Amino acid sequence: MKQNNLKTCWHDGRTVLNGWLSIASAFSAEIMAEQGYDSLTIDLQHGFVGYEQATHMLQAMRASGVAPMVRVPWLEPGIIMKALDAGAWGIICPMVNTAEQARTLVSCVRYPPGGSRSFGPTRVSFSAGQDYGQHADEQVVCFAMIETAEALENLEAIVATPGLDGVYIGPADLTLGLTGRKYRTGFDRTEPEIVDAIKHILHTAHRAGKKAGLHNGSAAYAAKAAEWGFDLVTLSNDVQLLRSAAAASVQQFRELNGVGSQSRQYAQPGGY
Amino acid sequence: MKQNNLKTCWHDGRTVLNGWLSIASAFSAEIMAEQGYDSLTIDLQHGFVGYEQATHMLQAMRASGVAPMVRVPWLEPGIIMKALDAGAWGIICPMVNTAEQARTLVSCVRYPPGGSRSFGPTRVSFSAGQDYGQHADEQVVCFAMIETAEALENLEAIVATPGLDGVYIGPADLTLGLTGRKYRTGFDRTEPEIVDAIKHILHTAHRAGKKAGLHNGSAAYAAKAAEWGFDLVTLSNDVQLLRSAAAASVQQFRELNGVGSQSRQYAQPGGY
Amino acid sequence: MKQNNLKTCWHDGRTVLNGWLSIASAFSAEIMAEQGYDSLTIDLQHGFVGYEQATHMLQAMRASGVAPMVRVPWLEPGIIMKALDAGAWGIICPMVNTAEQARTLVSCVRYPPGGSRSFGPTRVSFSAGQDYGQHADEQVVCFAMIETAEALENLEAIVATPGLDGVYIGPADLTLGLTGRKYRTGFDRTEPEIVDAIKHILHTAHRAGKKAGLHNGSAAYAAKAAEWGFDLVTLSNDVQLLRSAAAASVQQFRELNGVGSQSRQYAQPGGY
Amino acid sequence: MKQNNLKTCWHDGRTVLNGWLSIASAFSAEIMAEQGYDSLTIDLQHGFVGYEQATHMLQAMRASGVAPMVRVPWLEPGIIMKALDAGAWGIICPMVNTAEQARTLVSCVRYPPGGSRSFGPTRVSFSAGQDYGQHADEQVVCFAMIETAEALENLEAIVATPGLDGVYIGPADLTLGLTGRKYRTGFDRTEPEIVDAIKHILHTAHRAGKKAGLHNGSAAYAAKAAEWGFDLVTLSNDVQLLRSAAAASVQQFRELNGVGSQSRQYAQPGGY
Amino acid sequence: MKQNNLKTCWHDGRTVLNGWLSIASAFSAEIMAEQGYDSLTIDLQHGFVGYEQATHMLQAMRASGVAPMVRVPWLEPGIIMKALDAGAWGIICPMVNTAEQARTLVSCVRYPPGGSRSFGPTRVSFSAGQDYGQHADEQVVCFAMIETAEALENLEAIVATPGLDGVYIGPADLTLGLTGRKYRTGFDRTEPEIVDAIKHILHTAHRAGKKAGLHNGSAAYAAKAAEWGFDLVTLSNDVQLLRSAAAASVQQFRELNGVGSQSRQYAQPGGY
Amino acid sequence: MKQNNLKTCWHDGRTVLNGWLSIASAFSAEIMAEQGYDSLTIDLQHGFVGYEQATHMLQAMRASGVAPMVRVPWLEPGIIMKALDAGAWGIICPMVNTAEQARTLVSCVRYPPGGSRSFGPTRVSFSAGQDYGQHADEQVVCFAMIETAEALENLEAIVATPGLDGVYIGPADLTLGLTGRKYRTGFDRTEPEIVDAIKHILHTAHRAGKKAGLHNGSAAYAAKAAEWGFDLVTLSNDVQLLRSAAAASVQQFRELNGVGSQSRQYAQPGGY
Repeated sequence: MKQNNLKTCWHDGRTVLNGWLSIASAFSAEIMAEQGYDSLTIDLQHGFVGYEQATHMLQAMRASGVAPMVRVPWLEPGIIMKALDAGAWGIICPMVNTAEQARTLVSCVRYPPGGSRSFGPTRVSFSAGQDYGQHADEQVVCFAMIETAEALENLEAIVATPGLDGVYIGPADLTLGLTGRKYRTGFDRTEPEIVDAIKHILHTAHRAGKKAGLHNGSAAYAAKAAEWGFDLVTLSNDVQLLRSAAAASVQQFRELNGVGSQSRQYAQPGGY
Repeated sequence: MKQNNLKTCWHDGRTVLNGWLSIASAFSAEIMAEQGYDSLTIDLQHGFVGYEQATHMLQAMRASGVAPMVRVPWLEPGIIMKALDAGAWGIICPMVNTAEQARTLVSCVRYPPGGSRSFGPTRVSFSAGQDYGQHADEQVVCFAMIETAEALENLEAIVATPGLDGVYIGPADLTLGLTGRKYRTGFDRTEPEIVDAIKHILHTAHRAGKKAGLHNGSAAYAAKAAEWGFDLVTLSNDVQLLRSAAAASVQQFRELNGVGSQSRQYAQPGGY
Repeated sequence: MKQNNLKTCWHDGRTVLNGWLSIASAFSAEIMAEQGYDSLTIDLQHGFVGYEQATHMLQAMRASGVAPMVRVPWLEPGIIMKALDAGAWGIICPMVNTAEQARTLVSCVRYPPGGSRSFGPTRVSFSAGQDYGQHADEQVVCFAMIETAEALENLEAIVATPGLDGVYIGPADLTLGLTGRKYRTGFDRTEPEIVDAIKHILHTAHRAGKKAGLHNGSAAYAAKAAEWGFDLVTLSNDVQLLRSAAAASVQQFRELNGVGSQSRQYAQPGGY
Repeated sequence: MKQNNLKTCWHDGRTVLNGWLSIASAFSAEIMAEQGYDSLTIDLQHGFVGYEQATHMLQAMRASGVAPMVRVPWLEPGIIMKALDAGAWGIICPMVNTAEQARTLVSCVRYPPGGSRSFGPTRVSFSAGQDYGQHADEQVVCFAMIETAEALENLEAIVATPGLDGVYIGPADLTLGLTGRKYRTGFDRTEPEIVDAIKHILHTAHRAGKKAGLHNGSAAYAAKAAEWGFDLVTLSNDVQLLRSAAAASVQQFRELNGVGSQSRQYAQPGGY
Repeated sequence: MKQNNLKTCWHDGRTVLNGWLSIASAFSAEIMAEQGYDSLTIDLQHGFVGYEQATHMLQAMRASGVAPMVRVPWLEPGIIMKALDAGAWGIICPMVNTAEQARTLVSCVRYPPGGSRSFGPTRVSFSAGQDYGQHADEQVVCFAMIETAEALENLEAIVATPGLDGVYIGPADLTLGLTGRKYRTGFDRTEPEIVDAIKHILHTAHRAGKKAGLHNGSAAYAAKAAEWGFDLVTLSNDVQLLRSAAAASVQQFRELNGVGSQSRQYAQPGGY
Repeated sequence: MKQNNLKTCWHDGRTVLNGWLSIASAFSAEIMAEQGYDSLTIDLQHGFVGYEQATHMLQAMRASGVAPMVRVPWLEPGIIMKALDAGAWGIICPMVNTAEQARTLVSCVRYPPGGSRSFGPTRVSFSAGQDYGQHADEQVVCFAMIETAEALENLEAIVATPGLDGVYIGPADLTLGLTGRKYRTGFDRTEPEIVDAIKHILHTAHRAGKKAGLHNGSAAYAAKAAEWGFDLVTLSNDVQLLRSAAAASVQQFRELNGVGSQSRQYAQPGGY
C-alpha cells in the first residue's frame, strides 16, 4: 500500500494544502487534481454531490498523487464505510459534538480491534494496493469536525479519542454555533472571540497529539492558519473558484467594452 | 416564444458575450449561467460532454436569462437536430468549408420550406414555449465555423447562404489550417497574417449581412475583437477558468507559506 | 431570496396543490412543473429516485414558479440536510411518531439557534439567492408525517414543536398503522374511523397553529380535503398519471379496434 | 431466438399497437411496458433521450412481452447498428427520401449477404437468445419514414427495396414537407390532401408487399388508421400522456376547489 | 405476486446458490442473471454501487428468474425500505449484533402489524405484481449478518426474532471480529475455531427454525457448506470472477507467447 | 507527452496484448486495467457502451500504464475526434473498405497538415500532457478494420495510406463478408480459406510497413497469431470473461452439490 500523502506531508513538516470539491464532475475533479494540492476532499455533506458521482471523481483523481478525502454527510456508518471502500484516504465527519460521537466515528473508520469497520475493500484494494487490509488503519486519516458550543465543551474528551487523527474546523458553522446570528456567515473569521476559539481548538488538539485542520476562503488566511500551526488548511473550493473567475472575466470584458455588467437585467428569466 | 437573447443584444447594438462549457456538469453550467454572460455554449465537439449530460445542462441553465447554444461535434444531421430539440437556441457547427456544407447545415437547422429539419420539438416546446414550431426559424441562430484554408477560399459563397446567421472563428484551427505548425496553437493570435485572416472573415461576413463571432482566451482580446466589430465574442471556458483560478490560488498559498509549489513532485502518482 | 410559493398561497388564503414525483427523470419533472401545481415533491422515500437524480430534477424545475419539496427517506440527518442544500424549499419527513423525533426533524431543518442544520447552501444559494442563509429559516417549510398509532397518541406534543410548520398525512400508512390489514391499502379513505383520524389530525394541527397536508388519489378527494380545511393537498403522482393515462389510451384503442386488451397475454415474457 | 411480437401480431391478423417513449427514464419505460402495447419505440430522434439512457430503457422493458423498437436520429450507420446490438427488435428511420437511402438503411439493418451490418450482438444475444445471429434478419423489422415530397415521388422505388419491412408515416413532417406552413403542425390530419397522401403511401406499400405504420395522437384516429389497413399504429407518447393527465388532474381540482388554474401566474419564475 | 425463488428452492429441498454483484453495471448484472444462480445480491455495503445504479441493475435482472436481493450498507431504515420498494426480494443486513438490532431490522422489512415498514411499493408493484402489498411479508426474506463476537454472544436471542428469516455469515468480518489480526482476512476459513463458530451459527439458526447463509470464495467450499446444511451459499462475486478470469487469460497468453507477464512493469503509470 | 505503450511494445519487439471492454462500467475498466494487458480498447461499436460512459472508463484507466484505445461505431468524424479528445491513444475504425475511406479515417485522426482533425484536446491534454498538441500525431495509433470482400480487394491501396498505422481484423465479420453464412460466426477461425485471408492481410500490411492486429477468442489462438507475426492481438473481452467464469463457477458448484445446473428451468421468468 502507498503512503498517504497527508502523512508524507506531515512527516516532512509541511502543512497539507487541501482543495475542496463540491461540483459532481469527474472532469472538474481531474482538473483540480493537477493544480498542486496535497489532498482534495469530495464534499458529500454540502457539496452538490452524491455517492455515485463521488466514485467517478475518486477514479478520475487516482492518477494524480493527490490524496483523496471525503467529507461525509453526517455521522452515519453506512456512508462512512462506503466512502472508505470507494477509495477515500481520509474522512472528515461533520458535527462531532461528544466523545461518544468521536468514538463512533473512529469505530466506523478503523477495522477491529481498534474499531468495527466491516471488511470489504472492494474498490480501494485496486487503487491502494491488494494489501490494503493490512495497512489501512495506519494510512487512513480521520477528522472530527468541531463546530458547535457543545463540541467546544467536550473538546478535551473528543481529542483524547484513540484512533482519531485530528479535528477539523468549519468556521461558518462554528460561528453560527457559538454566536448565532451575531456575525455574518462564512470563512476567514476576524472576530476575536471566533479567532480565539479557533486557536483554542488548534492548541487543544496539538496538546493531545492530534492534528488540526481549518477551512479557509483565501490564500492569505490559509497561510496565516498555517503559521498558527494548522496541520491542514483547506483553500476555497471548486464552486467559488469557478464562480469568481468567471465573474471577474465577465466584469473585465464589460469594463473594457464600455458596457456595464447589468446586461443580465435585460435577459428574460425562465425561458430557455 | 421568447426572444433569443442573442437577437436582443444585436437589436440593442451590443456585442454578445458568450461563455463556453466543456465540463459535463449541470451544476457548473448553472453556476456559469449566473455570471453575466449573454449566452453560453455547450461544446459537444471538443468539450468532455456528451448528449445526455448536455440535456441536464440545458435544463439547469433554463432559469437564467442566458441563451443556450450548442457547438455540435461535426456537420452530422442527427446531433444537430437533437441539440435543437433539446433546447439549443443556437448552433455552432465546426469545419464548414464549402457553400454546400453551409447549405446542409442550414437545412438541418431550419424547418421546411427553408430547410429540412424534422418536426418534433419535444423538450424545447416546454422550455421555449408551445408555439416554438411557429417561431423557431426566426429565433434560432446558426453559425458556420470558418477554420481552414478551403473555407477561406469559399468564404464569399459560404456567407451568401440563405438561412445562415453568421460565421464563427476558431483561431486555433484557423491558424493550424492556414499555416500548419508554423505558430503555436491557441487563441488570441497576434501574427499579422492570422489577424488579417480574422478581419477578412469578419468583414466578408458583414458585407453579406451576416454576423461574425470569435473565440478568445482573454477579456482584453475579446474587447479588442468587439471593437473590430465582432457581433459575438466567446471569452475563455469553464475548464480554463477553473484551472487557472485553482492554480493561482495554490501558487498564492505556496508563496505566502514559503514552500514552493513543487510539492506535487513528491506525490506518488498512480496510487489512490 | 424569493418567497416560498407555499407561503404565498397560504398568505393568499389558498390551498396549496402539490404534485408528486416518483419517476427519476429531470424531463418528467420539467413537464410536471408546467402543469399548474403550486408545489411539487420529489419522493426520495417511496419514489424510484435517489439523491443524484433528484439534483437534476430540482434544477429542471427551477425555471418554473413551482416550489420544490423533498420527501426524505427517513428521519436521517444526512439526507435531510443534503436535500435542503440541493434546493428543496420544503421537507416532508415520514414516520414522525414522537415529539422528540419532531424536534430532531426541526433540528435538521433549521439553522442555529433554532436548530442545528449545518451551514453550506452550496447549490441552493444559486437557485434561491445569495442571501439564502439569512432567510432560509423563514422560507423553508417542514412537515412531519403522522401515520402511526404512536404518532396519533403523541400528536399534541408533536404539533407543539417549535419550528415545525405542519403535519402531513399518508393515508395508506395511517390506515395500516391504525387498523392493520383490516382495510385495503391506498388513498382516499372512506372508512369513518380513518376519516375521523384524518380530521382529528387536521384540527389538532390547526389548534396548534400548524398547517396540515393530505395525500390524495383523486381530484374529488383532494377538493374535499381542501374543503375540510387542509392547507396542502397532494394530488396523485407522476407514476399513476402516466400509468392510468396510458392504460386508458390503450383500452380506448382496443375497444374501438374491436380487439380485446388481452393481447398482452399472447406476448412472450422475458425475451427482448 | 424469440418471435418478434410485431410479426406475431401480423401473423395473427392484428394491427400492432405501438407506444412511444420520449422520456429518458427506465422506470417510465417499465411502466409503459405494462400497459398493453404490442410494441414500444424509444425515440432517439425527437425524444429527449440519448443512447445510454436507451440502454437502460431496453433492459427495463425486457421482462415484458412488448417488442422494443428504436427510432434512430438519422440515417447514420453508427447509431442504427448500436441500437440493434443494444436490443432493438425494430428500427424506424426518419427522412428516407430515395431508394438509395432505403438501401443504405437496409444495409445497416441486415447482416451479409443481404446487408452489411457488422456482427457483434453483444447485449442482444443475452436478451434475445444466443442464436440471435442466425435469426436476426428474419426477426428484426425495418421501417423507412416517408415524410417529404421527395420521398413521395420516390415511393415506388423505396417500397421496392428488398429487406425493407415497411414504411412509417410521421404526419407532422409529411404535412410540413408537402404543404409547408399551410396547415398547423401535428398528428391526426384531416385535410383531404394530406389524408390522400397518407392513404396513397399505405396502398403503395401494400401493393409492394410491405407494411405501413402511422403515428397518431388519439385512439380514435389510430383506430381509423387501423381500419384503413395500417399494420402498425402508434398512439400518442409518454410526454403527452403525462402532460395531459397532469393538466386534466390539476384542472379538475381547480374547478372543484373553485379557484382558477391561473395560479401559475402568481408564481415567481426563475427562483427555486 | 410471484413466488420468491429462494422460497421455491427451500420448498424443493435445495440449497440456494447466490451470486454477488459489486460492479455498478446493469449489463454485468444482466449477464450474471443468465448464468444459473438462484438469486443474486447487489452489494450496497462493500460493492462499488450506489442506490441509483442498483435500480438499473434490478430492472435488468427482472427478465430472468433469479431472485434479486440487496445487502444494505448498514442497519439504516431509509436505505432498507428504499431497496425493498425498488424491487429487492431479500435483504441482507450487516453487523446485526443484538436482538434489538434484529428487531429493528425486521421492523424495517415487514409491514404492520409485524413491523413498521412504510407502504409505497412504487416500483416493486410493477415488477412483482399489483398485489405486492398483500403478500410481501410472506415473500420477502430477511437475513441478519452475524459477524462479531457480540453477535455470537447474542445469537440465541437474535435467531429468536420473529419475522427474521435467517442469519448470514460474512467469514472475513467474523474472523476479524473473533480473532482480530490473528489470521489472514478472507473467505473459505479452515481454522478450526472459525469453522466451529460458523457451524455453531448454522446449528443455532436451524434449532430456532431459521435459515443460514454463508459467503464463499470457491465452489468447493460452497459445496462443503451446502453439505453442512447451509440453506444459502454465496459463491464468489462479479469482481473476483472478472479479475481472475482476465488475469488467467493474460497469464496464459504470456506463457504461450514466451514473454513474462511482467510487461506491466514497463508501463508508465499515471499518464493516459 | 508520454510514450504510447503500444509504440513502446513495438519498439521493444513485443506483441501488444490488447484487452477489450464492452461493459459500460468505470470499475470493470479499472479492474481490467490491473490485469497485465498492454492496451485496452473500449468498444463503442458493438459494446453496450456510449460516449459518456466511455469518458468515465478512460478516467478510471488513467492511473494504470495501459494504453487506452477506442473502437468507434463507424467512420463518422464526430465520434472519432471526440474519442481522441477524451483520451484515446488509439482508434480502431470498423468497415474501412476503400482507400478513400482510409484517407478519411486518417484525416479525422491527424492534425493538419497530415489530416484535418480539429484542435481542442480539452481532456486529453490533462491526461497525456499539456504538450499533447505537439506530439499527438506521433503517438496516437490509427487502425482500419479489414472485414469485407471489398476491403480485401482494395487492401494494397488501403495499407498504402499515409498516416495509417495498421489494419485490424475482425474475424467474425471477415468470415461473414467473405463466405456469407457458410461457416459459424465467431473468432479463432480454422477454415483454410479464412486463415489464408487473415495471413494475406497480415503480410500485405507488413509489406507496406504497417502493423496488423487480430481479434482472438482464446489465449491459444492469440499466441498463434503472435507467432504468425501479428503486432497486436486482442484476447477475449470483459463480457466473455465474466460470463464464462460465472458459468464455470456455477457449474462447478452444481456438480459438487449433486444438483444439475438445470435449476434455472424452475425459475419463473419475468417477475422480479
